[in-house]
Amino acid sequence: MYRNHTCGELRLADENKEVILSGWVQKVRKLGGGITFVDLRDRYGITQLAFYKDVNEDLYEEANKFGREWVLQVVGTVQERSSKNKNIPTGDIEIAPSKVIVLNSSETPPFTIEDETDGGDDIRMKYRYLDLRRNPVRKNLELRHKIAFETRAYLDKLNFMEVETPVLIGSTPEGARDFVVPSRMNPGEFYALPQSPQLFKQLLMVSGFDRYFQIVKCFRDEDLRADRQPEFTQIDCEMSFVEQEDVLQMFEGLTKHLFKVVKGIDIPDFPRITYADAMKYYGSDKPDTRFEMKFVELKDLTAGKDFVVFDSTEYVGAICAKGCAEYTRKQLDELTNFVKRPQIGAKGLVYVKCEADGTFKSSVDKFYGQEELAAWAKRCEAEAGDLILIICGETEKAQKQLSELRLEVGERLGLCDKNKFNCLWVIDFPLLEKDEELNRFFAKHHPFTSPHKEDIPLLDSDPATVRASAYDMVINGVEVGGGSVRIHNSELQEKMFEVLGFTKEKAQAQFGFLMDAFKYGAPPHAGLAFGLDRLVSLFAGLDSIRDCIAFPKNNSGRDVMIDAPSVIDDEQLKELQLVVNLKN
Amino acid sequence: MYRNHTCGELRLADENKEVILSGWVQKVRKLGGGITFVDLRDRYGITQLAFYKDVNEDLYEEANKFGREWVLQVVGTVQERSSKNKNIPTGDIEIAPSKVIVLNSSETPPFTIEDETDGGDDIRMKYRYLDLRRNPVRKNLELRHKIAFETRAYLDKLNFMEVETPVLIGSTPEGARDFVVPSRMNPGEFYALPQSPQLFKQLLMVSGFDRYFQIVKCFRDEDLRADRQPEFTQIDCEMSFVEQEDVLQMFEGLTKHLFKVVKGIDIPDFPRITYADAMKYYGSDKPDTRFEMKFVELKDLTAGKDFVVFDSTEYVGAICAKGCAEYTRKQLDELTNFVKRPQIGAKGLVYVKCEADGTFKSSVDKFYGQEELAAWAKRCEAEAGDLILIICGETEKAQKQLSELRLEVGERLGLCDKNKFNCLWVIDFPLLEKDEELNRFFAKHHPFTSPHKEDIPLLDSDPATVRASAYDMVINGVEVGGGSVRIHNSELQEKMFEVLGFTKEKAQAQFGFLMDAFKYGAPPHAGLAFGLDRLVSLFAGLDSIRDCIAFPKNNSGRDVMIDAPSVIDDEQLKELQLVVNLKN
Repeated sequence: MYRNHTCGELRLADENKEVILSGWVQKVRKLGGGITFVDLRDRYGITQLAFYKDVNEDLYEEANKFGREWVLQVVGTVQERSSKNKNIPTGDIEIAPSKVIVLNSSETPPFTIEDETDGGDDIRMKYRYLDLRRNPVRKNLELRHKIAFETRAYLDKLNFMEVETPVLIGSTPEGARDFVVPSRMNPGEFYALPQSPQLFKQLLMVSGFDRYFQIVKCFRDEDLRADRQPEFTQIDCEMSFVEQEDVLQMFEGLTKHLFKVVKGIDIPDFPRITYADAMKYYGSDKPDTRFEMKFVELKDLTAGKDFVVFDSTEYVGAICAKGCAEYTRKQLDELTNFVKRPQIGAKGLVYVKCEADGTFKSSVDKFYGQEELAAWAKRCEAEAGDLILIICGETEKAQKQLSELRLEVGERLGLCDKNKFNCLWVIDFPLLEKDEELNRFFAKHHPFTSPHKEDIPLLDSDPATVRASAYDMVINGVEVGGGSVRIHNSELQEKMFEVLGFTKEKAQAQFGFLMDAFKYGAPPHAGLAFGLDRLVSLFAGLDSIRDCIAFPKNNSGRDVMIDAPSVIDDEQLKELQLVVNLKN
Repeated sequence: MYRNHTCGELRLADENKEVILSGWVQKVRKLGGGITFVDLRDRYGITQLAFYKDVNEDLYEEANKFGREWVLQVVGTVQERSSKNKNIPTGDIEIAPSKVIVLNSSETPPFTIEDETDGGDDIRMKYRYLDLRRNPVRKNLELRHKIAFETRAYLDKLNFMEVETPVLIGSTPEGARDFVVPSRMNPGEFYALPQSPQLFKQLLMVSGFDRYFQIVKCFRDEDLRADRQPEFTQIDCEMSFVEQEDVLQMFEGLTKHLFKVVKGIDIPDFPRITYADAMKYYGSDKPDTRFEMKFVELKDLTAGKDFVVFDSTEYVGAICAKGCAEYTRKQLDELTNFVKRPQIGAKGLVYVKCEADGTFKSSVDKFYGQEELAAWAKRCEAEAGDLILIICGETEKAQKQLSELRLEVGERLGLCDKNKFNCLWVIDFPLLEKDEELNRFFAKHHPFTSPHKEDIPLLDSDPATVRASAYDMVINGVEVGGGSVRIHNSELQEKMFEVLGFTKEKAQAQFGFLMDAFKYGAPPHAGLAFGLDRLVSLFAGLDSIRDCIAFPKNNSGRDVMIDAPSVIDDEQLKELQLVVNLKN
């Protein structure tokens, strides 16, 4: 037996017990005077081994030779420490070893394996198996396990069945780019890896499975960013005989449950906001509502005072930064430079300081008097000491810029507390998005999303205004989940394909099996998918989803630890009847 | 609200309740005399809707037009049936509908959607979404969900963490053929889909994760059979600081638990048998122990009586078929023809009938007298009425043939009861397998399997005899799980690669990252993987794993429902810098 206790469980109550522990050497502390302490670590904690020269000279000499990350098995007796460590649960005791077996030695690790490490990103990714030894990294994965486990337990209780859908499926040219897999048994043909099990879960509804879920890997061959990986995990759900309201209730319940059991937080009922209002008040379809700072429109109040910049523009919008009237020139310049960055693209930033004495100071006070500025402030509900920040331009663009500014100001004011969680539903998304260049409509969500019943006639007359029965769950400005009521009627589905500019042949070729399935009694159904990686990141307060993935890939889609992807044998290519033809 | 009850839950106690149900029309029974019954079905059961002409003529007329598999929403009142159906839980009641909404109509399904269907395999696979509506098919998937769910709950309680390992990994030329995925971002390079997370789970042990599991899709590009699919699911497990005994205890515990909670069966402690004994007594490393019928060696007793066939051969083995002395000429011929089939390949079959009067009748009684035959019978523990069946030949081949015969006879005697479960561990597998043609050794399990400690010196002197710390869990002759203690020592691992004929460069190129990882303090570790598909099939009493997979592929690796794999756009190939080059 390698151990009968873990390194995290022994207490003073265990005094005088003979125990066996196994673990890694975290640290060897040679105190001098014939005393050496070794911290032995495993997943559960750290226990101190105490080697005293005058108790056992051989063991003491041996212990002085242990290096960091050696693997030891220790037989010894639990005893009370003379100098207790209140920072760790085992801090009252130490082990007096009677026997130590070195199970494995270790080379010096390329970075220190402690909560704070000296290793940079690259080296930690190359030696990810060592990075995973660090507490904060392991804790992220423990959290991930717990969230997945509790999700399953919650849904199972409510009669949801987890059904595995295939990973080797057919390619669908719509949406993001597929990863493909050449088929050796069917030369010249390819499987695709699923971007989501969308079609299969809808087929399961046709099959009468009625409450389906799956925690499942999905794949997208897209250029990567901090919150994107080529493979990611979804909590994928679908229900039959439900309306939008049922789905919102169900998954709001799941989310509250997760916050409660995983983080001990009670989340109130989720507010709901329409897509239109989200854009109007936050300039974003995933507003961070940990703080208010809603947009205020000032166009009408600014008009006619010969300030051409405002007069000639479509939209003038403001936010009120509480208590920021004291901002210095330098701070204001920083904000101006922030919104002028190319990725944000505003032309400039107008401010109004609401001074303590009730007067206003503004970058545009050449054009606007105290009375006008007071009217703006009133509409912004700004008080003395507040700072009003104004952006103008073409409505959609200016709203997006103002949204970025809002988040930046929120961050500067410390309003983006990672321990505070604000959840909401964004509903009533537009069904379609027009690509002006191609002069065609695309599905904003996907082609199976149902329009609002009352908007169906608009599909012919004014498609751009049709609202979808689609919803996103947004937490702290992160879209953690999204879904829709699906079309379950063949004719409406055909109509939808028509609006999307699919020929009958193309629709048949791509989704024929789904449309065929719908001919045999498809029930009304709706669903939702959570991004598990994002959900875990959010729960853990991480900036990147990479940190909650055991073995993530870098921005070039490479796993630098195992060095994949890589070239393969000619023999393998030959079997697949493929030739690599590199462009130069 | 589409429903407030399911079609499986209403009872006599609900009499007079107004309810809303939704579901599919299973059957319309027009009784005449103004009465029509409609069976409404959902995942939970069937409820009878009763339409009486004299109660509501319009609804009655409407109901007569309903077709099979239409989707209905029904508002009505629960009432007691006049003619009760004891075969279904809702058989005491019926619904008197006040309102029916047709949610969807249905074309006539291509096969009947009932427990026994008229649809052949091909049509049911093409319309799998309709096949899944059938009770027995859905029940297999419910069982699958339950087994997976209970496995997770059991392992979570014991501190196992589920960790997701990557699906896009590197190709490893050892083992079965990999599916590969061309990388667009790294042209000319390929990911591979994992045949198992073997390397990653061992890295997690190096990381100190100590108790890992994952229910995970794995992939093998092999030619397919009834019990093989290109994608399949494993319950993959690994533990640190354990010996073989710990692993056997742990997963024997899990298996017993699953039998208990899923099937209500108490399984006794699993017997253990060495690989050598399994071959000796059953001619198989996965013996079906629902019945004994062990092999008995007769070589010594048969020698020297001028029967050249036995005298000139290496092995003479017998099984005793209880109570089969009455077998007719025809039945004996059937058995002889069975063992002579090309896939079995025996030259012939010798029998000895133990007659009721104590005499013996044999196909070789020209050579052997009653006394000799009596000695054989004694060793076989055969009694009056039994039939002894004998096969001879080169030991290994003859044992395999006798194994097939044993299973055939067991089947004929009704000893292979699908409701009886016999579990056992097969241990002490050989570490290596020699390919005589290539004159090199292959790892029987995989190259990370640890040899028995006491056999390590034999790696140099007599590699073929080295026993591995490897084990299989066998239930009813099916290998449902297997694993091994791993090598955690770099030198032993290098030695192993040397025996397997890997050059240092090749070992480094393929497994370098694992060997590197082992330099930083690898703990002793061991693991096991269950085939979930096989486990579910076994629990469900299925002949093929295909029946417990929602959307399986056929023997050509095709999903005939979605018609995958398929050709992809030239544009996609161009982006991947690949050319299809079909041989003719």
